[in-house]
Amino acid sequence: MQRNRFLGDILSTLFDRSSTISNIDDRRDIFELCRALLSEEGEVSGQKLAATVLSRYRALAPEEKPAFFIFLNDELDIDAKALVKLSVQYSVDPTPATFKALSASAEPKRQELLRRLNQPMGATTDIVAMRVDLLRIVKEHPDLARTDSDFVHLFRSWFNRGFLVLKAINWDTPARILDKIVAYEAVHQINDLDDLRRRLYPPDRRCFAFFHPAMPDEPLIFVEVALTQTIPGSVTKLLSEGRTPLEAEDAKIAVFYSISNCQKGLTQISVGNLLIKQVVAELSLAFPQLENFVTLSPIPGLNKWLATQTKDIEHGHIASAILDQSAAPQDIRAMAARYLLLAKRDNGMPVDPVTRFHLGNGAEVYDIHANADTSANGLAQSSGAMVNYLYDLSLTERNHAGFALNSIVAAAKPARVLSTATLSLKPKEITS
Amino acid sequence: MQRNRFLGDILSTLFDRSSTISNIDDRRDIFELCRALLSEEGEVSGQKLAATVLSRYRALAPEEKPAFFIFLNDELDIDAKALVKLSVQYSVDPTPATFKALSASAEPKRQELLRRLNQPMGATTDIVAMRVDLLRIVKEHPDLARTDSDFVHLFRSWFNRGFLVLKAINWDTPARILDKIVAYEAVHQINDLDDLRRRLYPPDRRCFAFFHPAMPDEPLIFVEVALTQTIPGSVTKLLSEGRTPLEAEDAKIAVFYSISNCQKGLTQISVGNLLIKQVVAELSLAFPQLENFVTLSPIPGLNKWLATQTKDIEHGHIASAILDQSAAPQDIRAMAARYLLLAKRDNGMPVDPVTRFHLGNGAEVYDIHANADTSANGLAQSSGAMVNYLYDLSLTERNHAGFALNSIVAAAKPARVLSTATLSLKPKEITS
Amino acid sequence: MQRNRFLGDILSTLFDRSSTISNIDDRRDIFELCRALLSEEGEVSGQKLAATVLSRYRALAPEEKPAFFIFLNDELDIDAKALVKLSVQYSVDPTPATFKALSASAEPKRQELLRRLNQPMGATTDIVAMRVDLLRIVKEHPDLARTDSDFVHLFRSWFNRGFLVLKAINWDTPARILDKIVAYEAVHQINDLDDLRRRLYPPDRRCFAFFHPAMPDEPLIFVEVALTQTIPGSVTKLLSEGRTPLEAEDAKIAVFYSISNCQKGLTQISVGNLLIKQVVAELSLAFPQLENFVTLSPIPGLNKWLATQTKDIEHGHIASAILDQSAAPQDIRAMAARYLLLAKRDNGMPVDPVTRFHLGNGAEVYDIHANADTSANGLAQSSGAMVNYLYDLSLTERNHAGFALNSIVAAAKPARVLSTATLSLKPKEITS
Amino acid sequence: MQRNRFLGDILSTLFDRSSTISNIDDRRDIFELCRALLSEEGEVSGQKLAATVLSRYRALAPEEKPAFFIFLNDELDIDAKALVKLSVQYSVDPTPATFKALSASAEPKRQELLRRLNQPMGATTDIVAMRVDLLRIVKEHPDLARTDSDFVHLFRSWFNRGFLVLKAINWDTPARILDKIVAYEAVHQINDLDDLRRRLYPPDRRCFAFFHPAMPDEPLIFVEVALTQTIPGSVTKLLSEGRTPLEAEDAKIAVFYSISNCQKGLTQISVGNLLIKQVVAELSLAFPQLENFVTLSPIPGLNKWLATQTKDIEHGHIASAILDQSAAPQDIRAMAARYLLLAKRDNGMPVDPVTRFHLGNGAEVYDIHANADTSANGLAQSSGAMVNYLYDLSLTERNHAGFALNSIVAAAKPARVLSTATLSLKPKEITS
Repeated sequence: MQRNRFLGDILSTLFDRSSTISNIDDRRDIFELCRALLSEEGEVSGQKLAATVLSRYRALAPEEKPAFFIFLNDELDIDAKALVKLSVQYSVDPTPATFKALSASAEPKRQELLRRLNQPMGATTDIVAMRVDLLRIVKEHPDLARTDSDFVHLFRSWFNRGFLVLKAINWDTPARILDKIVAYEAVHQINDLDDLRRRLYPPDRRCFAFFHPAMPDEPLIFVEVALTQTIPGSVTKLLSEGRTPLEAEDAKIAVFYSISNCQKGLTQISVGNLLIKQVVAELSLAFPQLENFVTLSPIPGLNKWLATQTKDIEHGHIASAILDQSAAPQDIRAMAARYLLLAKRDNGMPVDPVTRFHLGNGAEVYDIHANADTSANGLAQSSGAMVNYLYDLSLTERNHAGFALNSIVAAAKPARVLSTATLSLKPKEITS
Repeated sequence: MQRNRFLGDILSTLFDRSSTISNIDDRRDIFELCRALLSEEGEVSGQKLAATVLSRYRALAPEEKPAFFIFLNDELDIDAKALVKLSVQYSVDPTPATFKALSASAEPKRQELLRRLNQPMGATTDIVAMRVDLLRIVKEHPDLARTDSDFVHLFRSWFNRGFLVLKAINWDTPARILDKIVAYEAVHQINDLDDLRRRLYPPDRRCFAFFHPAMPDEPLIFVEVALTQTIPGSVTKLLSEGRTPLEAEDAKIAVFYSISNCQKGLTQISVGNLLIKQVVAELSLAFPQLENFVTLSPIPGLNKWLATQTKDIEHGHIASAILDQSAAPQDIRAMAARYLLLAKRDNGMPVDPVTRFHLGNGAEVYDIHANADTSANGLAQSSGAMVNYLYDLSLTERNHAGFALNSIVAAAKPARVLSTATLSLKPKEITS
Repeated sequence: MQRNRFLGDILSTLFDRSSTISNIDDRRDIFELCRALLSEEGEVSGQKLAATVLSRYRALAPEEKPAFFIFLNDELDIDAKALVKLSVQYSVDPTPATFKALSASAEPKRQELLRRLNQPMGATTDIVAMRVDLLRIVKEHPDLARTDSDFVHLFRSWFNRGFLVLKAINWDTPARILDKIVAYEAVHQINDLDDLRRRLYPPDRRCFAFFHPAMPDEPLIFVEVALTQTIPGSVTKLLSEGRTPLEAEDAKIAVFYSISNCQKGLTQISVGNLLIKQVVAELSLAFPQLENFVTLSPIPGLNKWLATQTKDIEHGHIASAILDQSAAPQDIRAMAARYLLLAKRDNGMPVDPVTRFHLGNGAEVYDIHANADTSANGLAQSSGAMVNYLYDLSLTERNHAGFALNSIVAAAKPARVLSTATLSLKPKEITS
Repeated sequence: MQRNRFLGDILSTLFDRSSTISNIDDRRDIFELCRALLSEEGEVSGQKLAATVLSRYRALAPEEKPAFFIFLNDELDIDAKALVKLSVQYSVDPTPATFKALSASAEPKRQELLRRLNQPMGATTDIVAMRVDLLRIVKEHPDLARTDSDFVHLFRSWFNRGFLVLKAINWDTPARILDKIVAYEAVHQINDLDDLRRRLYPPDRRCFAFFHPAMPDEPLIFVEVALTQTIPGSVTKLLSEGRTPLEAEDAKIAVFYSISNCQKGLTQISVGNLLIKQVVAELSLAFPQLENFVTLSPIPGLNKWLATQTKDIEHGHIASAILDQSAAPQDIRAMAARYLLLAKRDNGMPVDPVTRFHLGNGAEVYDIHANADTSANGLAQSSGAMVNYLYDLSLTERNHAGFALNSIVAAAKPARVLSTATLSLKPKEITS
């Protein structure tokens, strides 16, 4: 316990680091500075040089940034010819010396540049922000995807799961962090701190986030949890203002009703899977009486799919009715179930991205609700329907394997029954 | 300030992580488990699988460990043929897709294995310990150097300087950490905590260490500092029991008299350079009156070199006299100066490893003292001589460049004068 | 630094104390329980008994509370006869034994009761809340002022200045504490957290509060500070939304524009004096370039006093004009200066309570501004006028002594000039 | 959890307080300074004046200190005549005004002086140290006991149990605090930190201390605990070097084998009772499997009592034999039981002070062991015998009441049986 306090101490110091001041008198341009950072000079004055490069980068106008990434991409690329030679040599005689040369040759110099940039206080945040720019620029300069894959590679080491820190977010959290939660909530909008209070303050609400030691002000991803007595069918009700909160000790269900990735710069460095598992573990420990862990999730692709079904013989009339907002709740649920369980991409995987995420984590489709998200966004994307995914830790491994290897969509009885339910509006009846 | 406290909080949680329990019922052997961790199963149950592998590894007998590393080295190596094909393809047509495939193919699977192993609480410490084994085993299995270079590569990202945390070590530090300082002191032995008190407690002593957030109980490297009024010429005196301590505010000189690397497993991941610079920065800030930052360093190779000089026309008799402990202090100093400034390896670099370290950091040889370390070890390695290296931050860059590019050994006047001083024992006089 | 962390640790534990559970099965009424707490039973089971009394007290209906205080006041009073006897005895023969008996006899048993009540976690907060009730009830039961003076006596020891902790309140403070700041702001209302952000977030704003270790969630008093370049004449402008904030390093003046006592239960335990001094000390250290420390204070009694002046020969017409909102700013300033410098109570002290507070702290009246607080409240109490009190730490002692001993109102030139300025509306001119 | 961290933060600041510097230029003597602190000057410059008084006090030579306390005792005493008048008046007409005047008059001005002294950083520690001096001086100046009783009175409010903080002391505790534990251990001497390690490091050892927020570096009292499987009969064995430690989870018994008061200046402000109860509560929570909480206590008065029994008809020969170290263990146990259960002071209370402490806390005498403390001190005071007192929380209240009201010494069967056991050495047998 106190050991951790020392750890805390350790970390506090991280940002007391006599903040490296960039050298504003250095007249070299950013490319020269990068070359210097990679040279002998970088060995001994790396921290100052890195601070100078980062400050120079922050001062670039948007239209100047592509040139920086093109520099990384081209000048700091691998030497393919050398690599060919070394890999041939290695395939013949795999000595350690060849291996070492081969490894060095296979890694573009821009990776070492990024590692050397990551020395001054706050540099990690800067480098993650750099990738936000890159992800924008790569759309017009597709070749830069090479550089992007180096960012991803490096971030996978830096943000290795073992370095992430789970942290409860609540009303004892500094306002500075709460501001970030307000800003980053991606699923059910939060207007301001007083609105956030409703999500964090009541005894039956929890929120957890992952942080990285080098970015202590920046949550990476967070999940909002409601503790309830039954599996809920409506997020509108879950978040209603007038409701009477439950004592946490009386809860039977933990509902993950919102998961938000915060760092666009960490796209592809997925940690949502681990977050849910650790939160399940934390909550199980704190509230052993909890029986089920479910989500209450949006179905972002439902309406888009329904629009493709309006000419379909079996589904056409129902799909149109749903899109016209004239369908019965039961039909919405049934069609949503068909969508989730049966609509597949060419590779056999479900069309819905949220489904892919949770089933990839080993969850199963549990139940579907109509009129569950009556916000403008909820109606627009899924005609108000939402879905519960169930996390049964004793099954996640099997579910995941079935999904990953054979594209099997695990579903519990309620969802299975819905997906095979007779639709109330029969095509015939309507045409007649 | 309080922001840092939240950071502290973040880190505290790191080790509260509901400690992942390895699965003791898993009957698979460690190789099977590693393969599973790299497979789909590892995606979803990685933390548990990793804990199981690590616990299985810890239970291996010493003679079983080589097989584990051979498995990493051979089964989890790169596919050289694929790499040849892809690098040829890339040299012709450097598309992002090819680059991505090439990068993936150039990275041995053992790297991904290590990243996946690094998930449970304490895993980083385990993996660093793994390399301690590897460094021992590689001596008999030189091929394993391939695997070792992957450890180095990964550790360079994990222990990126930007993630290291400087921490003052003093009498308010938990005893658990102080025990480590006692154990790891490599230069001037510390017997126990009460001995350590003499190094930490007086107002004119400081100690700083680097830590990594994922190994909060383990200093990586530490430096002991004495605050003095003049540049000291004897560590024996510096550490003597009876001395009257100085008030820190009255000090003019900061003396780095001992630098110890703590983690054998982090060999080649050098951070001593950064440590010295950050400590100089911290001390300058806290005590603006400080005028000089010097080391009081051992000269580990002196006697060995003297032994090679006993037949030398110019140095022979002096060298013998020193080794016989019959030389005058001035001659010891002069010979040590010649050794430090002039004795070179084939590549033009100084013979002495400590010289190479400090000059590589941009320091210069400042002065040399006889009878400075009269411990058994001090007499054996350098006939009691020690050297001050001077860190003048306005010169480090220039010094480093001269040293790195042209092997120039920067030396201040006292050292230069000594190196050219006439030796008192002239060869002739003696032979006559 | 780290020593403080251990202190932090110490305090953290304060509230981890396995929260004492009151004994809900104890059938005795609150009076019986108090007697038990004072008896032998209280010696050994004090913590549980105290928790039971406090929980019983919290459950009392408002109309039941007077009886509790009457019990304290009468049954737990001093034994006056015994005290007479002992004081006579002491005046004759002042032995330690008599002194001890006398001291014991002069202290009502209710003081010991309160000390014994203060054992379970959170008890201090409960006892402070108890006094809030008492201050209400004493109005109808004036005899209870005896009991109240025991609360005051005890609180003076418990909240001894040496135990108070100064704490910066900013955007890194937990939201729970910020909520309290919003609720307790007494001078210039804050609507919600997003409104508070304007007071805390900009770089030229500071806020400091005193806390007591046993009530960590409860600020006792706080002061809001604006850093400016000139002495400001309008709080409306100071708090305006559109303004461009200053860098703290560029400020010349620190303005204390709002001081709020938070704990009604600590009435008479004044710490505002110390708060201002410590904040001046903190700010001087952090920003050595600061030249002046002033307040921008309300003049709560101005309009009330003007109303008493409407028949006055010299002031009548001006006073009426001000109250009619038809006076020139300069006349408002002049009359406010006369009020602050010259309007006295029977005991020679200034009529205005805020003046008494700041002059009691050793400040001086510096300058007065019209149209400075144009809020409804500002217009109603002082026709929009506000005043700067100046804290010149080299003069506070002398000012305080002059004020305390001879009722001298220290005033700087601007205020003195205003107080003797010719009023623009001459009585004659108007009547003619 | 994080709330506590803010609390920690609060406290950290306590000692960051821009350390009040005493005014070394103030020429007044300590008496004048005290008078000034009590005057108007003290209202506004109290912190600086207090720092000056305290620094002046620390500089007093031992022989100068009595005069200081005599000043407190005489000049700052109560005005007995005024008190007589007010108490008579109060006994006739108990108005609040009279009560207030009476209360003020009954409190010596030295109490207000001490409260005002307690403002600068570290003042509480200074004032507690002041009482250490006083307790020494009062022996030669018995009249100063009046002043001492004011220290006691004030300390009872300042060190109110509600303000004390329980803290685990272990190997993660700063060395500075551990030094204090080594120094203050009063029962079983600890030589140095490496000796302390044996008491704190093994998994079956615990140590807890009380701290006060204003004296964070100073434990007030601490208890050392051994976790065992059976009720131990020998502290020598408990502390033996070679022993194999138990896993805490396997323990059945918690043994309090050493309780040490640390602050001589807090004599009479007893908190040992509360410490034991809170530690029992903490341990019960952490290790629910614990069945019994016992002490292993010294019997400091045994040999002294035996010396009084050597002429006694029944006990004489046994007592002599024990003192001669020629008695059988069983006889030592029996005589010790008689001593603990039957040897009484005139007021009916047990002769042994440790017995009075634990029975006052509601414990009972459980069992007695010979050869339990074979240290020099153990042999000298109790011929090696020790005793277990049992804390059964369901009985403490009843035990305490019986003891406090009727001097009943609660004893469990083993102790009762021992106390009535036939002594093996019969008087007759020996004389014959």
